[in-house]
Amino acid sequence: MTDQVKALFFDVFGTLVDWRTSVAREAEAILKPRGHALDWLAFAEAWRDEYQPGMEEVRSGRIPFSKLDRLHRLNLERILPRFGLQGTPDAVLSELNLAWHRLDAWSDVERGLARLHARFWTAPVSNGNISLMVDLARRNRLAWDAILGSEIAGDYKPKPRVYLASAEAFDLQPGECMMVAAHSNDLAAAAAQGLRTAHVARPTERGPGRGEAKPSVPVDIASRDLMDLADRLHA
Amino acid sequence: MTDQVKALFFDVFGTLVDWRTSVAREAEAILKPRGHALDWLAFAEAWRDEYQPGMEEVRSGRIPFSKLDRLHRLNLERILPRFGLQGTPDAVLSELNLAWHRLDAWSDVERGLARLHARFWTAPVSNGNISLMVDLARRNRLAWDAILGSEIAGDYKPKPRVYLASAEAFDLQPGECMMVAAHSNDLAAAAAQGLRTAHVARPTERGPGRGEAKPSVPVDIASRDLMDLADRLHA
Repeated sequence: MTDQVKALFFDVFGTLVDWRTSVAREAEAILKPRGHALDWLAFAEAWRDEYQPGMEEVRSGRIPFSKLDRLHRLNLERILPRFGLQGTPDAVLSELNLAWHRLDAWSDVERGLARLHARFWTAPVSNGNISLMVDLARRNRLAWDAILGSEIAGDYKPKPRVYLASAEAFDLQPGECMMVAAHSNDLAAAAAQGLRTAHVARPTERGPGRGEAKPSVPVDIASRDLMDLADRLHA
Repeated sequence: MTDQVKALFFDVFGTLVDWRTSVAREAEAILKPRGHALDWLAFAEAWRDEYQPGMEEVRSGRIPFSKLDRLHRLNLERILPRFGLQGTPDAVLSELNLAWHRLDAWSDVERGLARLHARFWTAPVSNGNISLMVDLARRNRLAWDAILGSEIAGDYKPKPRVYLASAEAFDLQPGECMMVAAHSNDLAAAAAQGLRTAHVARPTERGPGRGEAKPSVPVDIASRDLMDLADRLHA
């Protein structure tokens, strides 16, 4: 059933990189020297909580497509008052916004992705913009053939266009592509467009016990991590 | 003057890969067993000669953007009668069209590009489509951060949009990007949009003495090959 798969498409935030502890670390490094003492993990989670509403503005057509970096900045400005960060200089906010370019991968990712890349074409199909994906790839030695996803599609997941534009860029039919994600809604949307799906367990994405240990939708493969996925795909 | 360069954009056909002898080899491998005896190099050159007219249809707006693979196929059909290849089955033509996915790099490219990639962001800014670029990269171990160029821009070089869309994808100003090519017209077009430029000598691109040994326009760097370019950029 998955024999025809030629390319693997990866979700990135949460699936490959640990945004929660990485953003908390970056925020602390930038804001603590300025005298702020926050619950850094809560700050990271609050910022991430604005993620879907921010993209929904684009998905609904209320605002034109703009890169995720821009949405991250708008989302950041939205939560500043809640953390007593009003009046933080623009240059500091710009630097803080780049926290999303400095996320660390989960420990299985570099080796697992290298194995998968040896057998399949691989690309991020993320809502992150191209420059953000390049920074994460260089930081974590992610083995990509190309950067696909939202920026080449001009829309955000789970809109069908993002999956389909990515398959078209590789000259593949949807059924020759497998979406790999730690989020059931992403996989359900990909499956609806005819893609194969693999779930990766990330049970601590939002803190202990606050992540998907198992998919809540039917998937082709449910894996523990990328090494396990590589085993199951004979990579 | 080139201190601000953060990314290198590479022309591919002729600059990194030897399309002439590679297409001739692929054509011979496919057509000779079918009883054809052509001047294989002349066939490769004739096919390539249709390249600019084919793209001009898109650049001028006469036909909508389509991937270079599609234009290569139309160009192939145009030259068939000249080589007595009318009536060649569709499946054979489809296979022959993939000759452009199986081009070999010049001998300095793998090592030179690896050095440049260690210091700069690197991407092809080619008229080739994404899947074609991936095949060439895998075959020749080309070190890319992303695949930029015509397919993400929806137009063909030397139209300004191709250079500018590629810079925007990396969140860079044009002056932070350097176009690397063996073709003066490509470099002149990039310079007109504010990019830095580096010429690479490929004096045998179209056969002995039929390639640019030197640029015919002002450039920031004129290099012998990618190893020389890496030296000059302290990479």
